[in-house]
This record gives sequence, structure tokens and C-alpha cells, in this order.
Amino acid sequence: MATAFINAKENVTVVGLGSMGAALAGALIENGFQVTVWNRNPAKAEPLVQKGAALATSLAAAIEASPVTVICVSDYKTTNSLIGNREVEQAISGRTIVQLSTGTPGEARELDKWSRANGAFCLNGDILAWPKQIGSSQATISISGDQQRFTEHQAILSALAGNINLMGSEPGASAALFSAVLSYLAGSWIGFCHGALICENQGLRAEEFGKLIQSIAPMLGEESEHMGRVIQYSEFNNPESTIQTTGLDLHLLVQLSMETGISSALPAFAANIFQQAIDAGYGKQEHAAIIKVMRKPAF
Amino acid sequence: MATAFINAKENVTVVGLGSMGAALAGALIENGFQVTVWNRNPAKAEPLVQKGAALATSLAAAIEASPVTVICVSDYKTTNSLIGNREVEQAISGRTIVQLSTGTPGEARELDKWSRANGAFCLNGDILAWPKQIGSSQATISISGDQQRFTEHQAILSALAGNINLMGSEPGASAALFSAVLSYLAGSWIGFCHGALICENQGLRAEEFGKLIQSIAPMLGEESEHMGRVIQYSEFNNPESTIQTTGLDLHLLVQLSMETGISSALPAFAANIFQQAIDAGYGKQEHAAIIKVMRKPAF
Repeated sequence: MATAFINAKENVTVVGLGSMGAALAGALIENGFQVTVWNRNPAKAEPLVQKGAALATSLAAAIEASPVTVICVSDYKTTNSLIGNREVEQAISGRTIVQLSTGTPGEARELDKWSRANGAFCLNGDILAWPKQIGSSQATISISGDQQRFTEHQAILSALAGNINLMGSEPGASAALFSAVLSYLAGSWIGFCHGALICENQGLRAEEFGKLIQSIAPMLGEESEHMGRVIQYSEFNNPESTIQTTGLDLHLLVQLSMETGISSALPAFAANIFQQAIDAGYGKQEHAAIIKVMRKPAF
Repeated sequence: MATAFINAKENVTVVGLGSMGAALAGALIENGFQVTVWNRNPAKAEPLVQKGAALATSLAAAIEASPVTVICVSDYKTTNSLIGNREVEQAISGRTIVQLSTGTPGEARELDKWSRANGAFCLNGDILAWPKQIGSSQATISISGDQQRFTEHQAILSALAGNINLMGSEPGASAALFSAVLSYLAGSWIGFCHGALICENQGLRAEEFGKLIQSIAPMLGEESEHMGRVIQYSEFNNPESTIQTTGLDLHLLVQLSMETGISSALPAFAANIFQQAIDAGYGKQEHAAIIKVMRKPAF
């Protein structure tokens, strides 16, 4: 049929069918791509095969089926254990890997090197979204790598996330940014849980606490922008509230946690960093000056 | 003058003239209150006296000058060391204290008890604002204590912050909520600084990182609301991303920090909490399930 021919989209392979990998493959199928899938445990491919995906019998065959292979497994170590063999190295030649597994910038650079050595191209990306957001405008994927390959395969990438950001050609840049965001999230998740614990313990509702934090989210966003600027330009000396004052407040949080029998881990951890900054002479500076003691491997 | 008489506002005393206390006194002066101030170091009163405040010669005299005394010193310990004497106990009788120093819910309850014992009223409040925001719509003060006293002195409170929330009559409620918010802030500040460190180290700009976090602030607000609901109703079993997956990502953050020679304190702290939750059997549950291991004093 002429219509089918006009609408024909390129083939794409998806390796790794956990909840995120399955969401990626599903979004590609819905967008009309010819999708080949492969997973160590082939049972996970079944729902996708029912939607029209082809199941490859080996990883090498999966890679050979398409010019682009999207990989989404636990991490780079898993990726490397799957691709580190002659068959795959031959199959990958002339093709593009889009690596969306989580890893360090160094691991992204290693994969880029391996790809070049095998005549292939590599885009290292990181997903800032939950699986249910994949394919929607709520999903962001940051990519670093070859700009030409990025442009060539943009239709595939755009099917995965509404916001696709090319961060430049340095292969580790995307993993660095993802790591930075994860640091922020990890701190705020644990901080939130400790706050919710205090509410539970003191007869307030965790649900109301969540709504309160949501209501001040714009202010928290501005705070992050401000901290980024303060750190970038070393403007620590014009504080609204000092490390000294906050350090005292954090010691009270430790006291409260101990008195009420909940874990004092979060406030003790935070109080210790602030105390180290005070001891290092930064007490009259702004919060963000704690970064000065965090720049060293141990403190 | 008739006009002066019509516009006459009640007297109010401000004790503690650090940057926050001075901002509170300044906002009251600007709003036309007759302000009396006192500070251990009277030199700090000078700019306020120039704006029209009266400087009291003793704390007892300061309290006697007004029906309401706003206290904003380092903490409740400092407050208690100032007020714990016969002169002050006699001066406070029949008057209201608005305690805006930071403390634990237990300390707020103790001050409430002390006030009652001395025939006085007590409102325990917490300021969610920077000094420069005091008096504006950007400032929030949460108050707990006697509703009648709150209503009676609302003009004073409204001069201090655009958003004045009465959290009920339980004296410790406001301190509990403040502690919960501080927990969230402490976690996110340290998380932000670690993220900015990674950016510095990997050739990205801390300033751009701050803007990125600001741009996703609405999503982070929704995340907090979601976590509050998950914790309130123990709905940990429908995860978008699991503790297991995030735990693995956090171990990569530790690895990255160690490889690049920056402090691994934040990721190691976070990875440890997630690992404890995995070890306790919560690996397939949602992030917020880390609260289960934090409910215990040690983990």
C-alpha cells in the first residue's frame, strides 16, 4: 500500500524490558516504528510482541535488525556484560547505540570509546521521568554525543520524551547532569521523609505536610537558582541566613529526633556538615558555603 | 491631634535584635506601632531608635512597656536564660509573649506552661521567610496557641508577615511543622550542593544546574504531595521507581564521587538508608518507604 510506504518509519531495537525499557518500546510501537526487542528473560517481551514488536533470538540479531539500538538495563556494568563479545561487536558496526541506562560520566565515556573502536556511534542519555510519563511532554531525556547522529535519529528520540535536550558532544555530560539531579532528589526525599516522620510523631498529617511543601515549591525553585548563582560566582558573603544560625537549628532537630525516638540520621548528618563548615570558619556565610567542605573527599 | 489619636496603634515590644529581630521591629515601626526594643547588646538597637523605637533599660522594663512582647533570639535556651528571673516573671503577668525563636515542640510547650504559671499568655510561632521578606506577602509565620490572644493581636502579627497561619491551640504544633520543613530544606540544600559539586567537577555550570532545578520545581512539588499521600495512607506498593533501582543509582553516585575526589558524604548517607530499606525487604516498594527504617531511633 502506498500509504504504508509513505508512513514507513525506520526500525529500532530496544534492549532491556524492565518497567522503563518496556515503556520506551511501547512508546515507539505507538508511534509507528518497527520495533525489535530483546531481554535476557524473553517472557518480559510477551506484552510488547502482542502489540506488534518482533522478538529477536539473540542480542546480536536484535542489533542487526535496526540502525538504532536503545539500551535500558540496570546500569552500564550490565550493558558491558551483554555487549562485550565478538558477535555483538560485529553486529554493532555502522549502527548507533542510544544508551539510556544509568551510569557515571566515566562509564559513558568508556562506552563511547568502545563504540568508536567497533565502528559504531553512541548517544549517552538519561531519562528524567517515570515510566508512565514516557512518550509525553512530561518526560525529559538529556543526551550527549555526536550531534549528527542525534539529528539523524531525532524522530526516535522525540517519540520517547517531549523534551529532548542535546547537552553537547562530550559523552559524559548527560550522566554528570543526571547525577547532579539525583543528588538533589536523594537529599530532598530523605529530608521529606524525616519531616513526615516528625509530623507523624507530633500529631500532624504527612499529607498536609506534602501539600505545604508543594505550596512553597516555587520559592524552593528560586532558592535553587539562587544557590547555583552563589556557588558559580563565589558570592557567599551576603547571607539572608547564616550557616551558624542554620547549624543551631539543625542541632535542635537532632535533639527533637532523639527526644521523640525517631531516627536522628538526617538531622545529625546535616548538622555535622554545617558544624564542619562553622569549624572551618564559614559560620557567617550563606548556606551554600557548605559546598566548601564538601569539595574535599573526606571531612 | 485627632488624627494621631485615631491612628494610634498599640505598643509592642521586640526582644532580640539580630537580623531577623531587627527586621520584625522595623516592620512594626513602619506599620505605625509604638515599638519598644531590648537587646543584650544595646548597640544593635541604634538604627531602630533612629527610626522611632524606644530603647528599654532592662528586659523587665521592655516587657512592661507593651501588652505584647515579640521574642526573636537564637533559641528557646537563650529565651529561658533571659526570662528566668523574678523581675521578668512579675512584668509578664497579664501580658502576651509571641515567641518567634526556633525551638522544639517540647520547648514551646514548656514556655507555654511557664507563661500560664506567671499569669501570661503565649503564642509560639515560626518564621518561614528571610529577614528581607518580613512584612511582605512573601513571608509566612505559623502560630500555635490561644485563639483569642491570636485574634486580639492579629494587627501586630499581620504587620510581620503577609501569611499568618494559626495552627491550633496545641503550643508545639508550629515548632513541629517548622522542624519538618527544615528537615526538607536541609536535605535539599545538601543535595543541591553535592549536585553543584558534580557539575563543577565535570565541566558543567552550577548556575545552569540551579536553573534546571528551578525549571522542574513544579514537578518536585507534586512529588512531595505524592510522597505525603503515600506515607499518610501507607500506599507504598504501587511504585513508579523502586527503592531497589534508586539504591543502585545511589551506589553509582558514591562511585562517581570517590572517582572524582569530591566528598562522598551525601550519596553514601543516602545509599546507606536505601540499602537498609532493601535489607529490610522494602526493595520493591516506592522511595517513600525509606521512612519505615527511619521510624526507628537507630538503623
